[in-house]
Amino acid sequence: MTGIEGLAERLRRELGRERVITDRQELRTYECDGLAHHKVVPAIAVLARSTAQVAATVRACAEAEVPFVARGSGTGLSGGALPHADGVLVVTAQMRDILDISPADERAVVQPGVINLQLTRATTPAGYYYAPDPSSQQICSIGGNVAENSGGAHCLKYGFTVNHVTGLEVVAPDGSVTRLGGKALDPPGYDLIGAFVGSEGTLGVATEVTVKLTRLPETVRTLLAAFHGVDQAGAATSAIIAAGVVPAAIEMMDALAIEAAEAAVACGYPAGAGAVLIVELDGPAAEVAAQFDEVVRLCSESAAFEIQIAADDAQRALFWKGRKSAFAAVGRISPDYIVQDGVIPRTALPEVLRRIDALAAENGVRVANVFHAGDGNLHPLVLFDDAVPGEAERAETTSGAIIDLCIEYGGSITGEHGVGADKAKYMPRMFGDDDLDTMQLLRCAFDPAGLANPGKIYPTPRLCGERPGRRTAGETADRDGAEVF
Amino acid sequence: MTGIEGLAERLRRELGRERVITDRQELRTYECDGLAHHKVVPAIAVLARSTAQVAATVRACAEAEVPFVARGSGTGLSGGALPHADGVLVVTAQMRDILDISPADERAVVQPGVINLQLTRATTPAGYYYAPDPSSQQICSIGGNVAENSGGAHCLKYGFTVNHVTGLEVVAPDGSVTRLGGKALDPPGYDLIGAFVGSEGTLGVATEVTVKLTRLPETVRTLLAAFHGVDQAGAATSAIIAAGVVPAAIEMMDALAIEAAEAAVACGYPAGAGAVLIVELDGPAAEVAAQFDEVVRLCSESAAFEIQIAADDAQRALFWKGRKSAFAAVGRISPDYIVQDGVIPRTALPEVLRRIDALAAENGVRVANVFHAGDGNLHPLVLFDDAVPGEAERAETTSGAIIDLCIEYGGSITGEHGVGADKAKYMPRMFGDDDLDTMQLLRCAFDPAGLANPGKIYPTPRLCGERPGRRTAGETADRDGAEVF
Repeated sequence: MTGIEGLAERLRRELGRERVITDRQELRTYECDGLAHHKVVPAIAVLARSTAQVAATVRACAEAEVPFVARGSGTGLSGGALPHADGVLVVTAQMRDILDISPADERAVVQPGVINLQLTRATTPAGYYYAPDPSSQQICSIGGNVAENSGGAHCLKYGFTVNHVTGLEVVAPDGSVTRLGGKALDPPGYDLIGAFVGSEGTLGVATEVTVKLTRLPETVRTLLAAFHGVDQAGAATSAIIAAGVVPAAIEMMDALAIEAAEAAVACGYPAGAGAVLIVELDGPAAEVAAQFDEVVRLCSESAAFEIQIAADDAQRALFWKGRKSAFAAVGRISPDYIVQDGVIPRTALPEVLRRIDALAAENGVRVANVFHAGDGNLHPLVLFDDAVPGEAERAETTSGAIIDLCIEYGGSITGEHGVGADKAKYMPRMFGDDDLDTMQLLRCAFDPAGLANPGKIYPTPRLCGERPGRRTAGETADRDGAEVF
Repeated sequence: MTGIEGLAERLRRELGRERVITDRQELRTYECDGLAHHKVVPAIAVLARSTAQVAATVRACAEAEVPFVARGSGTGLSGGALPHADGVLVVTAQMRDILDISPADERAVVQPGVINLQLTRATTPAGYYYAPDPSSQQICSIGGNVAENSGGAHCLKYGFTVNHVTGLEVVAPDGSVTRLGGKALDPPGYDLIGAFVGSEGTLGVATEVTVKLTRLPETVRTLLAAFHGVDQAGAATSAIIAAGVVPAAIEMMDALAIEAAEAAVACGYPAGAGAVLIVELDGPAAEVAAQFDEVVRLCSESAAFEIQIAADDAQRALFWKGRKSAFAAVGRISPDYIVQDGVIPRTALPEVLRRIDALAAENGVRVANVFHAGDGNLHPLVLFDDAVPGEAERAETTSGAIIDLCIEYGGSITGEHGVGADKAKYMPRMFGDDDLDTMQLLRCAFDPAGLANPGKIYPTPRLCGERPGRRTAGETADRDGAEVF
């Protein structure tokens, strides 16, 4: 009996046979997440139903020295839940209970498999909702949102997942169960919530999540502004922010993205638009009314040639339908595509978009741009046809060059999709060795054996040794030979 | 030459003689911070001017195995900057340069000794300010704010220091210099900013801080509502929050606090008030106008017997003068007092205040209550006369019992003053062993030798060993014998 077979047998004994999948055909269900071109079949998948089952699984992995990867709904776009071929995939999708909803405290407690939108639906009757809204909110899990620190269109005003989590129950990589934070804001001691949210499964598995609930706004108003080009749309975005207005969302789509959305869902955006902005304001009626007029004025001044104002929820939904379907919609105009995710300072939008155009031309590929313009979070879609020799490589080159552009302009290699397996290679372009060493201190503290989602986030596996070979101020880097960290 | 003498000599050589204080009389300047009854004279004080000097000092401490404590302006109220008798005090108060102000990016970069209010003054001409506003903002340093994750009256709406720091340059306990975060929000990798802010000097010394700048609000409106008792003032607070209004501040003072403030600064609060609320709204004019009317109505409905609305900045300043001078003002009505800092759920305010009254009566002391009512952050001032035998002890007992009350009601042992030396003993009442062990993982990762501000936050010094003796789910605690962590 190999180590993996022994581990599977132990898991069956402790959790029940129906919780442990080892059949290779069944395991194919879990071979990838939303980063669909990257596939690895795990050795074992465990369908956990409780904290105790997650803890038993992780403890068994620790004792057998087998790596483990946690997975929620599997909608992540960076391969953060990509399985390990010789490891255990801990699936938390069936941990779907909402454990507590306390409108008076503005908190809810959920299991990690609870679907993002399910929590909003459950709290709407009490006048609340869960603010972080990834485009996949109908299917993505809150546990996955915690792992990737997910954002969404409305994070411009409301912040990312990390701004909405106040407490966690976590199974650490040794199988122990720990509570971080709670219902209160700002507890004493180290803020490990901040470090855990977005750690992509490398510090352990969240088994219970305490989140803030947000009051439903009194009013929501949405407009769609059409421009001849992205320069004007970018200028309008900057003007709105500079005026001190904080919209709930400012979303931009360029001509190619609009073409794809029209082909897919007939969203009826103004004909001939080189770019559209969707601007949404929410809050107290008096504030929204005053600011909405200002946004309309600023769009006009930035040369919007048509401004549509949503008359009702149906029209508002139509505005958003084009935007939310944009990723899938490019399938209508291109056989294959790469979704990129990067961040730049808002003020650099027009310049970076011009350089992306130039990169696309240079590499002979097309790039559709869809993005959270308000916070400078780009989602370029690099279109290609895998059947044409060399196109996939040229698309990959273009996509990578866009990330280099983001770094060049002082931005970031990911806005909300995470690093995962996909972008680990870019980390050294953004961070120096000392920065990465410092992060590694935390990883090694929680996971000295390196079994929690290895190969994700950090490009080079390092051993957790006594002390890292860190440079001190004034010293010259001297790193020849193998570094044991 | 003892180890300390050798260290002093090395520091003089590397930093210059004028930067190194070893004269015991001169060292008395630094014997305490704002927790004035707790005094320890350090062995050496270093007046650092640059990152390189801080790094050289910490590196020398690491090599000599001598503990070090960082200190900004020394206004902290929990003894977080209390020196170590055999250690080095690293004073960053002279690192006072504002390095960069970028209104377009809404960021500033400052040295740690920059005074909180100095940054607001420097950015006001551009239409911005630095939002976190501790009562000591005229004198406290941003480095100290980072160490203690300081709050202030307006943190109800704007959040704590941690919500305003996006980047740090840090000298780690081994003397190495690391950058955490930057100007961008939400960079990839672990969020070590969140962990570092509020770590009270136990993970290293911040030598450069990148903070968010906040736009000056279009309008600020302030009212003072007088009630017959704290019950009604508490009810008004709950009604305001429940209505979905998020004031910039809701501050409460009870009868004894009002008496002290009147005696000290003649702030002219309504006669006969058993409690006053100061409610401040800020933001777009249209929003503030609508919500201000609602706040007035809610205060009236909660039986406010007088509501004064600030007609101009002078009257607004007078409202705040009473509140901001309250701590010092109790010196007018009592020879000695303890400032307590605890948090309770907002909804429990009236009940907890009644129990604090009962505790005070039981122990034969008086308690004045001043607090950030909006976020349930109490600052009870326990009055006593050290000249009366037994009173100091009874005051200490009352103060501790108030913290127990906060924990009992699901709150926290500190809202914004930090744990420091003063409250380490309460940590095990709030956290279990597993929680404290998890925090210790982080401390040991950064500071395996335990030289960075030892004795603060965590009550029992533990050794950083191979792996902690943590319980795993389902196991029974078995902790006999000495635990090496």
